[in-house]
Amino acid sequence: MLKRITADDWKIIENGFSPETNRFFESIFSLGNEHMGLRGFFEEGYSGDSLQGTYVAGIYYPDPTKVGWWKIGYPDYYAKVINSINWIGIGVDLEGRHLDLAKGRVRDFKRELDMKKGCLSRTFTWIGKDGQETRFAFNRFLSMADTSIACISVKAVPLNYSGNITFHIYLDGNVQNEDTYYGESFWDEVNKDLNEEYSVITMRTKKTDFYLSAASRFKLVVNDRDFQTKSQILQKTGWVGYKTSHFAERGKSIEIQKFVSVVTSRDHEKENLEKVAIDKLAAAYRKGYTKLFNEHVRVMEEKWENSDISIAGDIEAQQGIRYCIFQLNQTYSGKDPRLNIGPKGFSGEKYGGATYWDTEAFCLPFYLYTKEEAARNLLHYRYLQLKQARENAGKLGLKGALFPMVTMDGHECHNEWEITFEEIHRNGAIAYAIYNYTNYTGNESYLFAGGIEILIEISRFWAYRVSYSQRKECYMILGVTGPNEYENNVNNNWYTNTIAAWTLEYTLESLIRIGEVEMNRYRELEKELDLREEEKALWRDIIERMYFPYVDDLDIFEQNDLYMDKEQTLVSDLDPKDLPLNKHWSWDRILRSCFVKQADVIQGIYFFPERYNQEEMTRNFNFYEPRTVHESSLSASIYSIVASRIGYRKKAYELYLRTARLDLENYNDDTEDGVHITSMAGSWLAIVQGFAGMSVQDGQLKLSPYVPEKWDGYSFKIAFRGRRLKIDVKKNYVEIEQIEGEPLKISIFNRGYHSQTGKAARAPIQE
Amino acid sequence: MLKRITADDWKIIENGFSPETNRFFESIFSLGNEHMGLRGFFEEGYSGDSLQGTYVAGIYYPDPTKVGWWKIGYPDYYAKVINSINWIGIGVDLEGRHLDLAKGRVRDFKRELDMKKGCLSRTFTWIGKDGQETRFAFNRFLSMADTSIACISVKAVPLNYSGNITFHIYLDGNVQNEDTYYGESFWDEVNKDLNEEYSVITMRTKKTDFYLSAASRFKLVVNDRDFQTKSQILQKTGWVGYKTSHFAERGKSIEIQKFVSVVTSRDHEKENLEKVAIDKLAAAYRKGYTKLFNEHVRVMEEKWENSDISIAGDIEAQQGIRYCIFQLNQTYSGKDPRLNIGPKGFSGEKYGGATYWDTEAFCLPFYLYTKEEAARNLLHYRYLQLKQARENAGKLGLKGALFPMVTMDGHECHNEWEITFEEIHRNGAIAYAIYNYTNYTGNESYLFAGGIEILIEISRFWAYRVSYSQRKECYMILGVTGPNEYENNVNNNWYTNTIAAWTLEYTLESLIRIGEVEMNRYRELEKELDLREEEKALWRDIIERMYFPYVDDLDIFEQNDLYMDKEQTLVSDLDPKDLPLNKHWSWDRILRSCFVKQADVIQGIYFFPERYNQEEMTRNFNFYEPRTVHESSLSASIYSIVASRIGYRKKAYELYLRTARLDLENYNDDTEDGVHITSMAGSWLAIVQGFAGMSVQDGQLKLSPYVPEKWDGYSFKIAFRGRRLKIDVKKNYVEIEQIEGEPLKISIFNRGYHSQTGKAARAPIQE
Repeated sequence: MLKRITADDWKIIENGFSPETNRFFESIFSLGNEHMGLRGFFEEGYSGDSLQGTYVAGIYYPDPTKVGWWKIGYPDYYAKVINSINWIGIGVDLEGRHLDLAKGRVRDFKRELDMKKGCLSRTFTWIGKDGQETRFAFNRFLSMADTSIACISVKAVPLNYSGNITFHIYLDGNVQNEDTYYGESFWDEVNKDLNEEYSVITMRTKKTDFYLSAASRFKLVVNDRDFQTKSQILQKTGWVGYKTSHFAERGKSIEIQKFVSVVTSRDHEKENLEKVAIDKLAAAYRKGYTKLFNEHVRVMEEKWENSDISIAGDIEAQQGIRYCIFQLNQTYSGKDPRLNIGPKGFSGEKYGGATYWDTEAFCLPFYLYTKEEAARNLLHYRYLQLKQARENAGKLGLKGALFPMVTMDGHECHNEWEITFEEIHRNGAIAYAIYNYTNYTGNESYLFAGGIEILIEISRFWAYRVSYSQRKECYMILGVTGPNEYENNVNNNWYTNTIAAWTLEYTLESLIRIGEVEMNRYRELEKELDLREEEKALWRDIIERMYFPYVDDLDIFEQNDLYMDKEQTLVSDLDPKDLPLNKHWSWDRILRSCFVKQADVIQGIYFFPERYNQEEMTRNFNFYEPRTVHESSLSASIYSIVASRIGYRKKAYELYLRTARLDLENYNDDTEDGVHITSMAGSWLAIVQGFAGMSVQDGQLKLSPYVPEKWDGYSFKIAFRGRRLKIDVKKNYVEIEQIEGEPLKISIFNRGYHSQTGKAARAPIQE
Repeated sequence: MLKRITADDWKIIENGFSPETNRFFESIFSLGNEHMGLRGFFEEGYSGDSLQGTYVAGIYYPDPTKVGWWKIGYPDYYAKVINSINWIGIGVDLEGRHLDLAKGRVRDFKRELDMKKGCLSRTFTWIGKDGQETRFAFNRFLSMADTSIACISVKAVPLNYSGNITFHIYLDGNVQNEDTYYGESFWDEVNKDLNEEYSVITMRTKKTDFYLSAASRFKLVVNDRDFQTKSQILQKTGWVGYKTSHFAERGKSIEIQKFVSVVTSRDHEKENLEKVAIDKLAAAYRKGYTKLFNEHVRVMEEKWENSDISIAGDIEAQQGIRYCIFQLNQTYSGKDPRLNIGPKGFSGEKYGGATYWDTEAFCLPFYLYTKEEAARNLLHYRYLQLKQARENAGKLGLKGALFPMVTMDGHECHNEWEITFEEIHRNGAIAYAIYNYTNYTGNESYLFAGGIEILIEISRFWAYRVSYSQRKECYMILGVTGPNEYENNVNNNWYTNTIAAWTLEYTLESLIRIGEVEMNRYRELEKELDLREEEKALWRDIIERMYFPYVDDLDIFEQNDLYMDKEQTLVSDLDPKDLPLNKHWSWDRILRSCFVKQADVIQGIYFFPERYNQEEMTRNFNFYEPRTVHESSLSASIYSIVASRIGYRKKAYELYLRTARLDLENYNDDTEDGVHITSMAGSWLAIVQGFAGMSVQDGQLKLSPYVPEKWDGYSFKIAFRGRRLKIDVKKNYVEIEQIEGEPLKISIFNRGYHSQTGKAARAPIQE
């Protein structure tokens, strides 16, 4: 992949247009505001290769799947977030020639994503067949202030001619998913209405019966002045629009400002939906483009204020991490506990916009440190789906709750037995998230309320899912797939056994704590969940006699039983032509190789740093890292953090680079499908938990920061138990600036420091 | 399943019609003649539930498959034998009422398959809405004498009225597979032609470009006399037919005889195909129904002469085994080495009519003992596909040849990684078949010609596929699925390791033998296959240091690594409601249970009886049989044979019963999909190799027969090295009647007996 993105602190810039990279940049230039989002495709349409995607969070469709080898317990559909009404459409005809960047010539093309302000602009000069040149400037933003509102502006200036310009300003409900299995359309039109003031269209999803109304109005601005205009009203099935033509004088500008509102039956009564859309649109139109934009920018500034990481001395690293933070904040802000974080956010169809364990294992800490209520809503999301998780376990003949591998509404929607049925460690990550939240915030209210119910049901699942080996006289977990999906159906994945036993421990501890603090709640749980002494005794027995595979001669954890029977070679022994393995090797060859897709043993070590000393961590890292191909975008960040912990700074930085600019550099050659939202959280963690060494132990915030060699320093802000802190790491010292909240004792390199609002604390960094 | 089939020595009889069992009986009453075949569906059409299937051997279609989790090496289609021109169609209208057994009333319905003659008859009285009764008799046969010819007769007698009867006699190319993935039609019409003498239609498969011509002519017979008639010519796309009406007098019969020829571009030039069909039809028509039928019956008699098993004292067992033999002979007779034996033969769509390891592991011995040239053609079939097997190994990054799991033309056409990529023991069965043939016939010509090339390439596959375990200092085979498909992706399946090491041994032995007998051929192999000393040395090293999992305390072979870590329970511990497991348990639960789908360790013991003593066989049988659910139709027969070997006669008989009437009793509740052709060979083996204890060791035929308690005796014929023998087993003695060939020394209970033509040898049986 050629370097196509210009380095910049706050901007992502593409210079020059190339059809070959169009899908890639469509992904990169995705915008979202939690409620809705879209890829960076063109307002005017494009006849070349393009993935036109406009998504609304939570609006999904159960696309039926068909496999020849159906297994009991398989869902019969794959729920996917679907392409919905295309509301950006503004077709442009210049003297009868249709603007289309796949045709004609393009000059001075520049696309720019301003991450600070959250807006996308595109400028270029288009030269038609007969040499007529027109300068264009497109701008769009999705309001963070009112997330149902979006605005687009198109400005055209004829450079070497005067002539008619015609705009088609439309809403198009006739959209499909590219990944539909049977070419189905997921939408039916419910109603449409248009007049000189506004156009509105309401579509309904088949099966799931979601209603979506989009309303639109436009304004004509000629030479920067509002201009009254007459337009022609157009409509067809699933489509409404206006046609308006104007004579543009050479050198003078003509601009369309398009205002859009998008609302759904997830938030409003179906009956009122159209009215809500029209009212919101009218209010937005009254405010006008500039005011709407300013309101939006203010919210963006707040977000940056809370979550930015500033890096000194490395502009590419700066651009990379800001892009990660930007996309995370575009995707999810935690306003709606029914929503979650799809691995591609609003940037593509892949992974169907569904929820994976990525949320708990990777994304949660980002929100936890920057916006606690968002983290809490992520936890609450799973609680809302506990009923389905119980059903899911039941379908597989198990007890307790098994949260789905992939879900939209709590039901499993993935069918690949080695994943769906066997990658059960996901249940552990959901338990761990409850711990993580409680440990970081010190706030036990979620644990005591829904959290403990989830923990009990997950513990029940583990207690039923283990089996007792008569031969080895211990509890085992047979037939699992660990985080390393390059081994399937293994016995005793060390990570899975670890997180399972830990869940039982944490559940028992939490029950004791609830018994101490809120006996009434404890009694209620006993009664409502039929919790008995025998059950807890069994959990204790499992904790005590759980089996953990171990390699005695190397003194490391064995990834799973028989792992050491594999031929032991290193990634460095591979012919680089074979990488990535998943694009070059047959599946059986991958499975029987020792190569690790993503952090597995190291994921466990990452989760429980206090359990393992430096030597243990180092031995395991030394063994597994050279065998890891990092072919999941979630791998390098975890390895980077553990590398920081054991003082492998060069390695930590090298691994950090793999994640932070993963999409901007298109390392995995798949960014055209969408950007890797969930792995972006890992990049943030690699700095905060890795380079800065942040953790919370026994209620105390701990830091052991260092600055990667190539950088001059970095700083970030976190929220911690009512305080807001800015942590500024320089080569020789770290400074804690407390922005608000009560005084705090912080441990830096295991020495205590006092932090208080208005007075910076500074600690030296010794190499 | 209610007992619906009347017991009879030579017939399968259904009395009374029931729509609920229609698909079941359609399967049961399938007919075939190796070239073509069809299910027992109705000539006149049927508006109720039915699977109308007419198949022509070797005419297949690559139905595209789509899976979300594509793996490198997956084929992108599933090749299936497809439903082709329906040539039985004879619609009947009685005074304007359309004959349809789903409508009106039916009385005295009887369907009868005469296995001796190979013909299907159906008689019933149909009572229309207004009480008019008509007696019908349908007869059909597919000629074994000229396999492109089939005949049908329909005779109608109005019982209580006189009136018009109209027949529509047609060929219908507009057929589909029920199991098509995307509802595709696989056929295009090429041409059709019809006149007063004949109708002909030529269809072409999409993609595979097979041409199929069917021609048809009919004769009207009134009151048993030929009758000249005028008929109306009808045609539409893919369809040609005649309409002919006659006034039928009460009590007098009116009969249509339909003659059909079916030929394909597999056997004839496309350009001549239609002419071939017409000429064959004309010749058949000239011969007439009776002569054609007699010619057919003569070939049937020959088949029975060679392959019948006669059982005294148990009519159900007799009917069961004859049904097995009948269907095997209908499906394959070895005339065409491009053909093979689909698990459902011509009786349904399931398993796509493709070739599985069933052929070598189960079917081959039946043909070997009854029709050597058929067995040889089965071997040759794989040789013809050696090139594709090499390619297949290459696609998976392996060396040598990997024969496909499922195939039509040598290319893999199944995509389920744990099967396609991992069930590699199939390669061993193909090697074993070469040994089996050579050992039984004493004829080394196939081994020296194509056989050795296959053996070398399979050996190369094994040598590349093993890996060396540094930890255990031995060779292992990781990541396989054994015959027991209820464990996936295991290490060191004992059966697979056994057959792999054995293949290497047999290949080395065969090379030594070729070197001794035909040095030129040996030199040629060395040169053409680049066979070097180092390679053979590696094979020897693998043989010597192959790892075989073993359970020390029980002194048994361990099915695969870690099998003994599973919770050890028995089938008898299961709630019978949970059986069959594959219809009640989720896949992960099955996988981590100790339950065995089909003979696995016992399959290896079956293949190599001389390696294991009675105690070893017994210990392994005692351990594995109580854990085996026999949810593959191929399991019980193998267990039955080994039970016979270790003197577990009651068990052997019980297991035999599970296979011999599997379809007639619909034990697996899936006969409606088609009958289990390949497992029928297992039933035959359970008698010949099991009860009669037949084997060939060091070139000598050995017997150790007994009669199951419930029977009075049984007899069968085999061909052995130029002799034909009839083996007649009574309670107290066994008699060998030699029908032809040179004198022979036979070992019975390890004592030598002399057999010679015309003089029976008799040996006592001591209990």
